[in-house]
Amino acid sequence: MLLTPPVINALKEPTSSAWVEQAINNIDTILLDHSHCERKAAGVAINLMFRYPSNTKLVRMLTAIAREELEHFDQVNDWLERRGIPFAPLAAPPYGGGLNAQIRRDEPNRLLDALLVSGLIEARSHERLGLLATNLPDAELAQFYGSLMASEARHFGIYWVLADTYFERDVVVQRLEELAVSESKLLETLHPEPRIHS
Amino acid sequence: MLLTPPVINALKEPTSSAWVEQAINNIDTILLDHSHCERKAAGVAINLMFRYPSNTKLVRMLTAIAREELEHFDQVNDWLERRGIPFAPLAAPPYGGGLNAQIRRDEPNRLLDALLVSGLIEARSHERLGLLATNLPDAELAQFYGSLMASEARHFGIYWVLADTYFERDVVVQRLEELAVSESKLLETLHPEPRIHS
Repeated sequence: MLLTPPVINALKEPTSSAWVEQAINNIDTILLDHSHCERKAAGVAINLMFRYPSNTKLVRMLTAIAREELEHFDQVNDWLERRGIPFAPLAAPPYGGGLNAQIRRDEPNRLLDALLVSGLIEARSHERLGLLATNLPDAELAQFYGSLMASEARHFGIYWVLADTYFERDVVVQRLEELAVSESKLLETLHPEPRIHS
Repeated sequence: MLLTPPVINALKEPTSSAWVEQAINNIDTILLDHSHCERKAAGVAINLMFRYPSNTKLVRMLTAIAREELEHFDQVNDWLERRGIPFAPLAAPPYGGGLNAQIRRDEPNRLLDALLVSGLIEARSHERLGLLATNLPDAELAQFYGSLMASEARHFGIYWVLADTYFERDVVVQRLEELAVSESKLLETLHPEPRIHS
């Protein structure tokens, strides 16, 4: 039986057990994809700092996120080297592109959507890394995933606080609701390639 | 009299005392520009990791650089907040664009040039932060710059080692020589706006 840790309230639908099975049966590919996810997460945070250099709170909080993502990137890469998994590019699943397509292009909507999309990805990562922590047979790797999942939840919190800083609360809540529906829909059908966000 | 610390051998021409005077007389603008430089340096390292995801040594070494640049970005931003300097965009001097124009677009030349251009920027930053450390009247800020300059020299070393890993030594030496000439030429005329690389 697969155990499910509690999910952040933002997510509309929990991850299916089919994903957990796919991930556990392809853990080397998941580790490689996870490495790419951490680098991408750092890149997204830094890009937001480039785009909004005058928003002090955003810059300071996203610096903390980017630093932590790079630390995790390093840690996942240690696992890759340890398991002899060659560093390599990996085709992204439709998830990221699907979410980016939801980001409106006009400001300030673009900022709101970018913050909430990043927050939702963190929330989903929190849930899925937690599922790996609970279900992986390799105790040491399971423990590693357990150590990461708290940060992902904290990152969701930071993106939420930033959205709440620059926008009215009810606007944030309503838009998060809409984006969360899209996010869960994008994961409705399991992507055939094993990925963190398949 | 202005004191000059030793420069990394790679640089063709030392920084003029005119730059030192301009920087010291406009230290708040220099701090703001320095903040942008650290974020850009992290962004460049991460972009290289995106472009060459299979080059394990490059990925691992540039992760270390990016993490350190973000740490410095945070530290410079502490100084901005402490001195009440508002976070704001700042027009870049011609230096970065001029150096990027030297990067050949065909691989593997593109990788070699990108590594050496980043290395030269680090070497120049090492020299200039050293000049600030030696010449700033504010002892605490001078000490801060002294603490950063060693990292910049180390970063030059990492970019050099990476170039030397993926390319023949004589090819690296000759191209570094050419790029170093361009680099010094770009700084021959002092840019009228005070910048780290004016």
